[in-house]
Amino acid sequence: MKRIVVLGSSFGGLTAAFDLKRFLGKDAAITVVSDDDRFVFLPSLPWLIMGHRRPEDITLKAADILKPRGIDFLHEAAVRVEPEASKVFTAAGESGNESEIPYDYLVISTGPSLAFDEIPGLGPDKGHTNCTFTLDHAVNTHAAWKKILEDPGPVVVGSSQGVSCFGPSYELAYEMDAELRRRNMRHRVPLIYLTSEPYLGHMGVGGLGNSKRFFEDTFAEREIKCMVNQAIEEIAPGEVRLKDGTKLPFKFAMIAPPFKGVPAVAPLGNPRGFIPVDKQYRHTRYKNIFVVGVAVAIAPPEPTPVPTGVPKTGFMTVKMAKTAAAVIKAEVKNETPPSPGELNVVCIMDMGNTAALMKGDPVLPPRRKSVTKKGAQYKALKIAFERYFLFKMKHGFSNLP
Amino acid sequence: MKRIVVLGSSFGGLTAAFDLKRFLGKDAAITVVSDDDRFVFLPSLPWLIMGHRRPEDITLKAADILKPRGIDFLHEAAVRVEPEASKVFTAAGESGNESEIPYDYLVISTGPSLAFDEIPGLGPDKGHTNCTFTLDHAVNTHAAWKKILEDPGPVVVGSSQGVSCFGPSYELAYEMDAELRRRNMRHRVPLIYLTSEPYLGHMGVGGLGNSKRFFEDTFAEREIKCMVNQAIEEIAPGEVRLKDGTKLPFKFAMIAPPFKGVPAVAPLGNPRGFIPVDKQYRHTRYKNIFVVGVAVAIAPPEPTPVPTGVPKTGFMTVKMAKTAAAVIKAEVKNETPPSPGELNVVCIMDMGNTAALMKGDPVLPPRRKSVTKKGAQYKALKIAFERYFLFKMKHGFSNLP
Amino acid sequence: MKRIVVLGSSFGGLTAAFDLKRFLGKDAAITVVSDDDRFVFLPSLPWLIMGHRRPEDITLKAADILKPRGIDFLHEAAVRVEPEASKVFTAAGESGNESEIPYDYLVISTGPSLAFDEIPGLGPDKGHTNCTFTLDHAVNTHAAWKKILEDPGPVVVGSSQGVSCFGPSYELAYEMDAELRRRNMRHRVPLIYLTSEPYLGHMGVGGLGNSKRFFEDTFAEREIKCMVNQAIEEIAPGEVRLKDGTKLPFKFAMIAPPFKGVPAVAPLGNPRGFIPVDKQYRHTRYKNIFVVGVAVAIAPPEPTPVPTGVPKTGFMTVKMAKTAAAVIKAEVKNETPPSPGELNVVCIMDMGNTAALMKGDPVLPPRRKSVTKKGAQYKALKIAFERYFLFKMKHGFSNLP
Repeated sequence: MKRIVVLGSSFGGLTAAFDLKRFLGKDAAITVVSDDDRFVFLPSLPWLIMGHRRPEDITLKAADILKPRGIDFLHEAAVRVEPEASKVFTAAGESGNESEIPYDYLVISTGPSLAFDEIPGLGPDKGHTNCTFTLDHAVNTHAAWKKILEDPGPVVVGSSQGVSCFGPSYELAYEMDAELRRRNMRHRVPLIYLTSEPYLGHMGVGGLGNSKRFFEDTFAEREIKCMVNQAIEEIAPGEVRLKDGTKLPFKFAMIAPPFKGVPAVAPLGNPRGFIPVDKQYRHTRYKNIFVVGVAVAIAPPEPTPVPTGVPKTGFMTVKMAKTAAAVIKAEVKNETPPSPGELNVVCIMDMGNTAALMKGDPVLPPRRKSVTKKGAQYKALKIAFERYFLFKMKHGFSNLP
Repeated sequence: MKRIVVLGSSFGGLTAAFDLKRFLGKDAAITVVSDDDRFVFLPSLPWLIMGHRRPEDITLKAADILKPRGIDFLHEAAVRVEPEASKVFTAAGESGNESEIPYDYLVISTGPSLAFDEIPGLGPDKGHTNCTFTLDHAVNTHAAWKKILEDPGPVVVGSSQGVSCFGPSYELAYEMDAELRRRNMRHRVPLIYLTSEPYLGHMGVGGLGNSKRFFEDTFAEREIKCMVNQAIEEIAPGEVRLKDGTKLPFKFAMIAPPFKGVPAVAPLGNPRGFIPVDKQYRHTRYKNIFVVGVAVAIAPPEPTPVPTGVPKTGFMTVKMAKTAAAVIKAEVKNETPPSPGELNVVCIMDMGNTAALMKGDPVLPPRRKSVTKKGAQYKALKIAFERYFLFKMKHGFSNLP
Repeated sequence: MKRIVVLGSSFGGLTAAFDLKRFLGKDAAITVVSDDDRFVFLPSLPWLIMGHRRPEDITLKAADILKPRGIDFLHEAAVRVEPEASKVFTAAGESGNESEIPYDYLVISTGPSLAFDEIPGLGPDKGHTNCTFTLDHAVNTHAAWKKILEDPGPVVVGSSQGVSCFGPSYELAYEMDAELRRRNMRHRVPLIYLTSEPYLGHMGVGGLGNSKRFFEDTFAEREIKCMVNQAIEEIAPGEVRLKDGTKLPFKFAMIAPPFKGVPAVAPLGNPRGFIPVDKQYRHTRYKNIFVVGVAVAIAPPEPTPVPTGVPKTGFMTVKMAKTAAAVIKAEVKNETPPSPGELNVVCIMDMGNTAALMKGDPVLPPRRKSVTKKGAQYKALKIAFERYFLFKMKHGFSNLP
C-alpha cells in the first residue's frame, strides 16, 4: 500500500485526492494536509465582495467531503518537506500535535503565498488595501465595499508587480462599475484599473486573441480609467504611490499582491518559491513529488517591462491534478503513463451585467485556438458552473468532467 | 420691484430673461443688454458655412422677441461692471447715450471673447484663417469655402491651444468631407483636423465613453488626417506653423481661437476672465451676480499637455440659466431655492451624411451615463431641434422643455 | 510602318502589345523582348506557395499567345537601351545571337530588380530566406513551406526596407495562419509579420481607409504577431537581425527584398533605377519611350521612417499599359490623345478562409474613394478573376475589361 500525502485542500488537492482514491482504492492510504479545513470556491470571491454570495454558499468542510470517501484529512500546517527522506513535517494543528508524515508520493497543491510585505503599506493586515484572494480577505473587502456605497469616493482596483492572477481584478472593476450604475452613483466614484500588465488584456499570457482591443473598448464604454505597465512603490493611507512618482488617491483600494511560493515548499523551487516540473507535473529532481496549481513554475511567454506571472486558474489546476494523479496511478500499477496534452484554459469572466468567455489552447502562445468574446449567456454559464462544481466536490464525483 | 439686468442675448441671456419674467411678472424690471441685437442659433453656423442655411434662417431680432413679453432690450455694449455699487456701465449704443444701469440682480451671459491676438496671424480680421463662432465670421467662412469648391487645395480645420469648444470643428471636418465626396472632388482636397486635444474625441471633457475610438475610426474611414496634442506658433499666409516646427500648408483654414472672458466682465473672474461660481451659478464673491454659459469658470477634468477648456454648449448654458433664474426667483419670493442637479449635456454632432449622439451625465467624469454613437436618425433630430428651439425663442415659450 | 519594341512579357508588356496591335494593325511591327518566355499570373504565387496552384495552372507561353496575333516575341535579355539612337541591345538569347533592335517607340515594362544583395544573407540564392516574387522563387518557397508543415518552427513573413509590394506578404501571413489552423498545428508555429511599413495596413500608400485598424484587429484575432517600422541589418542562418538589435529566430522566413529598376533600363531613371514619366507614362525626357508598371517612379505620399515604396499592382500596370498604348496610337494616327485619368487601384487580398477588398481612387491620398473590407465573397471573386484574366491573355482579348 502506497502512502500518498497531498498538501492543500483547494482545487488541486481535492481533485488529486479524489482521483487517486478512485484509481487506487485500497492500494493507497491518502492523507490531505491543510492549514485550512475548508474548500472555498475561490472564483466566486468577487461575487462575495459584491454581496451576491455569502461565505457558506461557496464553502465546504474538507473533512466532510474527504472522510466518507476514505481519505484522511489532517488540519495542520505543513512547515517543511524533506524530499530526500520523503517526509512532510507539520506544525501543531487542531490536535495539538506536530506531525512527521512519511510518504511514497507527495502531491503539492499549496497555492500562492501572498507577499504583501514586498510593498510597504500593501494588504489588509498591516497595510491600507483590500484583497480578493482568500475567503477572509474577501469578507473584509465586502465590508469595505459596503462603506464605499454609503460614502462614495475614489476606487483603485488592480494588480501590483509580480502578480500572476489578473482575472478577479478585471471582474471586480466591471462588477463595481455595474453595481454603481445600478445604484445611480457611478458619478461619485472615480474608478481606476491599475496594473503591472504591459497593456490591457495581457493577463500574464501575452493576451488572448483580440483581448487588448476587447478590454480597451469595454473599459472605454464604461469609462473605467486604466493605468498599465505600472509598479507600486508603496501604499500610504488613502494613496497609491507608483514607482514613476504618480500618486493615486483612494477611499477603497483592492490591489493584488505579488505572489510567491508558500514557505513550507518554497525550498523545492526557484528563488520566488515556484517549483519546476516536467510535463507530467513531476518535480524535475525529486521523482516522487508532484506539483500542481499556482505552486508550479511556468516561464512567462515573454518578459514584461514590469514583472508579471502566468496565471494558473482553478480550471488549469484541476487539469494538472488529474494528470499528476493519472501518472501516479500508472506508476503504482506499473502501467504506461498517459501522455499529457498541452495545458489549455477556459475561463468565464464576469462583467457585471454580462460576461466574457476566454479560451486559450494551449495557455501560452503560439496557440491553436484563442478566444475573447462577450455574451450574456456566459454569465448564466458561470453561475451554473459554480453550482455544478460545488455539487461535484461535495459528492466526490471527481470522475465527472 | 427688483431691477434685474441680463448681459447677453444668446442662449443664456434670453433663457434667463424669459424665465425670470415668467416667474416674477410685475415684481421684476428686466433689462437685457447686448451689443448684438440678434439672437443667432449658433449650433447651425456650420450649416451656414456649408451653404445649407442662410443667416435669416437662424436669426431672430432680440427686441422683437423680448419687448412683447415686457422685457426691455438695450442695444448697447457693456463696458464695465461695478459689483460693489451694483451697476453696469455701457458704451454709447444705438441711442448714442452711455448708460449707467443699477441692478438688484445681474445675470452675466456674455459668452467668450475670441482671443485671435494671442496667436500671430490667427483669425479673419488681421489674420489668415477663418472662424465659425459668430454669424459674421461664418458668413465670411462660407464665402471662403465656396472658393475652395471652385479652386480646391489643402484644408486645415481645428482648434488652437486654449479652445473650449471643439464640436463645430469636428462637425465641419465631417461636413466638408461629405460635401467634397458628393461633388466627387475629395481627392483634390487634403483635409487635416488639427487640435489641441490630447487625443481625438477628448473634446475638453476627457472623452465621452468610447469617443476616442469613435472618432479615430470614423476619421480613418473618411481619410480625414488628424494631428492631436498640437499648439500653434503662428499662422503665415497659407501656412500653419506649429510649436513643434511642423508646417501645414493650406488654401483654406478654419481654426478656433483661444477663448477668454469678455473685457466688460473679465475683472470679475480668473486671469483668463472666466468667472468662478457656486453650484447655483452665483458669483463666489458677489452674491447678487449670477453667471451662466461660456463666461463661467469650470476646472478641466484633468490637465492636458496643451491647454484646453471645458465646453459649455447651448444646452448646458440653457440649463445654467434656468437654474440661476430659479434661484433668483426663490430669493426674491423668499422661498427655498431648488437644489441644483449636476450639470449634464446632450449634443448631436452632424457628420455630413449621418450624425452622432453624445451624452454626458454629468458633463465631467466620473459619470453616471456617457454615450457616443452614430445614427442617421440623429441628423433628423438635430434639424428638428433647431426648428423647435427657434420657434420656442420666437414665441417666448421658455417654459417648454 | 512603326517599329514598336516592348520590354517585358508580364501584365504591362502583354497588355501594351495586344492593345497596340489591335489599334494599329498593319501600321505597326511590334516586338516583345523578354528574358522570360512565360507569362506568369503573379498574384497567384502565394497560392502556389501554399500548394493550391501548380506552376502550369498560372503560366502561359508568351510566344504561344503573341505570335498568333501577329506580334513578334524575342526570348532574349535586354542589356542596354540607347535612347538617343532609339535602339535596344540584347544579350544572346535562345537563338544564340545578340541583337540590336531599332525602335520608333519603346514600351518599358520590365518590373523590379530584386536587390537581395543590399541586405547580407537575404534571399534564396546566396542567402537564407525565401521569396514570393518570381515563379522559380515561389516553387522553392513551396518546398520550404512543406518542410515546415512536417517539422514546425518559428516563421517570419514580411518586407525589408525599400519594398514597394506588401500585399503578398500580408496574404501569406493570413494563408499560413489558416493552413496551420486547418492542420491543428498553429500552436507549433510562432508567426511574425515583420515590415518596414510605419504601421500595419500602410502598404506603401499611407493606408486605405481604416486599413490600420483592419489589419491590427484581424492579426490580433489570429494572434499573428507584428513588428512594424523595422529595417533589417542582416540575415544569419535561422535568424533575422534588425537594425535596432532585435534578433528573430526562424525556421522559415519569407522576406521581400528591396526593389530597384532592372539594370538594362535603370540608367534611364533615378538613382534607384525607377523611371520618371508624365501622366501619359511617357518618359519625361525621351518622348518615344513609355514606361509602365513597377519600372515607373512614383513619389510616396509621405516619407516613412524606414523607406518604403508605392506598390504598382498588376491592376495598376494594366491601366498604365492601356494609357500608354492609347497615347502611342493617337500619336501615330495623329489624333488627340485621350486625357489620362488619375491612377486608381482595386485589389483583393486573400486571407486564407476569407478575403478583403481594398480600393483606392486615386491610389494615393487624398482620395475620392477608399475601402478596406472583409468578406468571403471576395475570395470567390479573386479566384474567378484569376481564371478570367488567364483566359483573356491566352486568347488575346485585351479589349475585354
